[in-house]
Amino acid sequence: MHAPVEDFADIAADVLARVRDRAPLVHCITNTVAQNFTANVLLAAGAAPSMTVSPEEIIGFVTTADALLINLGTFDAERRDAVDLALGAAEAARTPWVLDPVLVDRSSARAAFAVTLLRRGPKAVRLNHSEFAALFGGEASDEATARAAKACGAVVALTGGIDVVADGTRRAVIRNGHPLMGLVTAMGCAGSALLGAALAVEVDAWHAAIAAVAVLGVAGEIAGASAAGPGSFAVAIIDALHGLDRAALRARIKVT
Amino acid sequence: MHAPVEDFADIAADVLARVRDRAPLVHCITNTVAQNFTANVLLAAGAAPSMTVSPEEIIGFVTTADALLINLGTFDAERRDAVDLALGAAEAARTPWVLDPVLVDRSSARAAFAVTLLRRGPKAVRLNHSEFAALFGGEASDEATARAAKACGAVVALTGGIDVVADGTRRAVIRNGHPLMGLVTAMGCAGSALLGAALAVEVDAWHAAIAAVAVLGVAGEIAGASAAGPGSFAVAIIDALHGLDRAALRARIKVT
Amino acid sequence: MHAPVEDFADIAADVLARVRDRAPLVHCITNTVAQNFTANVLLAAGAAPSMTVSPEEIIGFVTTADALLINLGTFDAERRDAVDLALGAAEAARTPWVLDPVLVDRSSARAAFAVTLLRRGPKAVRLNHSEFAALFGGEASDEATARAAKACGAVVALTGGIDVVADGTRRAVIRNGHPLMGLVTAMGCAGSALLGAALAVEVDAWHAAIAAVAVLGVAGEIAGASAAGPGSFAVAIIDALHGLDRAALRARIKVT
Repeated sequence: MHAPVEDFADIAADVLARVRDRAPLVHCITNTVAQNFTANVLLAAGAAPSMTVSPEEIIGFVTTADALLINLGTFDAERRDAVDLALGAAEAARTPWVLDPVLVDRSSARAAFAVTLLRRGPKAVRLNHSEFAALFGGEASDEATARAAKACGAVVALTGGIDVVADGTRRAVIRNGHPLMGLVTAMGCAGSALLGAALAVEVDAWHAAIAAVAVLGVAGEIAGASAAGPGSFAVAIIDALHGLDRAALRARIKVT
Repeated sequence: MHAPVEDFADIAADVLARVRDRAPLVHCITNTVAQNFTANVLLAAGAAPSMTVSPEEIIGFVTTADALLINLGTFDAERRDAVDLALGAAEAARTPWVLDPVLVDRSSARAAFAVTLLRRGPKAVRLNHSEFAALFGGEASDEATARAAKACGAVVALTGGIDVVADGTRRAVIRNGHPLMGLVTAMGCAGSALLGAALAVEVDAWHAAIAAVAVLGVAGEIAGASAAGPGSFAVAIIDALHGLDRAALRARIKVT
Repeated sequence: MHAPVEDFADIAADVLARVRDRAPLVHCITNTVAQNFTANVLLAAGAAPSMTVSPEEIIGFVTTADALLINLGTFDAERRDAVDLALGAAEAARTPWVLDPVLVDRSSARAAFAVTLLRRGPKAVRLNHSEFAALFGGEASDEATARAAKACGAVVALTGGIDVVADGTRRAVIRNGHPLMGLVTAMGCAGSALLGAALAVEVDAWHAAIAAVAVLGVAGEIAGASAAGPGSFAVAIIDALHGLDRAALRARIKVT
């Protein structure tokens, strides 16, 4: 199982162009550490974030949103209730949603909750190697990612030094990004939100996930070229995302 | 109804100088997305932020504060209770307060709550065009802003590409700012907090609002001159606010 | 009572090297204003942050953590419960913890809670002059810091223009840092988290506290040399912390 021969630079550039054109509303139930950076990443990409978790209004926000992110980084009772209401609204409106099972490797209660969410039909799951092992069992690998995607019926985006994006039948390996991405808090969380924005404008969830992962990775490479450390890197990746164009994607994207 | 002939650069510079001199305590009930940026904007301007929403202590914080911000961006039960307690304390201490009805256009429950808050006498309301339409009805315009200000008895600061600040009898149009201000999350929220700081040192709420809006707009212009995108812009506007002086305000301010 | 003649540059460099080598897990119960910056400071120093306050999972997080930070900046019921559970887990696992009694000078309820926490045996307390006066009574000074440390059985790190670190028998004065540190929100909170990381790798809590305070102060000096204001300073101190080496500590550290 390998990636069909496709022009992934064009796919990613098209997705990014549509995000900028349509400014999709991405509602994010996400942790308080990640909220600000996530909102700025979405804005830099051209999307429009909202972040409320209040039970009185989350249904209204999700119903009018174009995509939904469920990030488990703050796993409190209020957010669990919000998740249930939000998924009900997303199901009713057929709104695509992304699951980011943050740190399920550190909390069995959180892992158990993530398993119940997998059954509710996310379009995509984005996670790192430790989270993958905790959620799907066994060590993360290209093959394991493909199997997990098949088993859960969602696109699985495994991110790390090298990224893998699989659905039940296709698999792509993405060799973009920069080591400093691992030293900025909420980089993965923001990547999941960007994946939500991509799902809002691209019905092929595998293409959407490849686009989101590659776009952030290429922005990371551009940022890494000028950054003096993780502080300036976090700033520069926002700038790079905002300025990213088809030519830069063509020159840098590495998807196989 | 137009702005009287006044030296708005001097008014803004005087307000900023007093904020730096007195370092007013501005208590902010604001959303978790905006808290960090808001605190840094207040510090850069010379004010001192506090942010608790805990019912056990909010009365103490508000009672000793010089201004209060009520931002509806996180509309949960805890914050609604905090708002009620905080307004009681502000009324008792005659502390000026600002209402920022964030995203009332996305939630009717939030809009209804904002209407009840309008009746409790904010000195100023800061909002964007969509929020204006949801809260006051009808499309936002200079005339509509003046009418809204008259109707609710508060200064209304409508911000966007061009900003309008009106009270019941006076109106000013402010043509400062930079397009990247719209791509940094919490820029409006932070502007409302800055308006709180201005109210703490200026009894004429219309002057205070003009000063806050113009100061942030001029800082935005300075930031925009060097920024490579919204990431570096968010950093540079904090620097610009910190370094802003009377000469820069004189050179750049556009209030009519 | 003065600092014994020791090579504090080497002590600080050794602590920093061990943090980078071992990447200690530092669980932070901290306020929502400070979470993002605190996480980025920990990552830049080589540590690994976690931040949940959910009662269902905090025991698991603290049990597997190498250090714990209790920051009172958001003093709500959920966090007070989380603190109690977290301290139980820390006591059971003999995990070192730091108390940061943020703004106890603004809230008597918070001050009273901080007093109860002092009795539960923090390894270190980090606070500013106003917080010192509210928590220990009397004006902050070198002597008062030494007395407070003796009385509460913890290292006390009093930070400000000049920093003092004392335990029951030793005292050090640290003359590093930069005035812009006071204009970045959560700088003190992040310093307390860094102290947690130091405690995770250094059993002598007095050495750990000196190392943490000096490392952040030297990073601040390096950042201050290039910053254009508090915005770029907040970015540059993260970069400086990430790039800090033994030579820079040798050249700049001022501990007596």
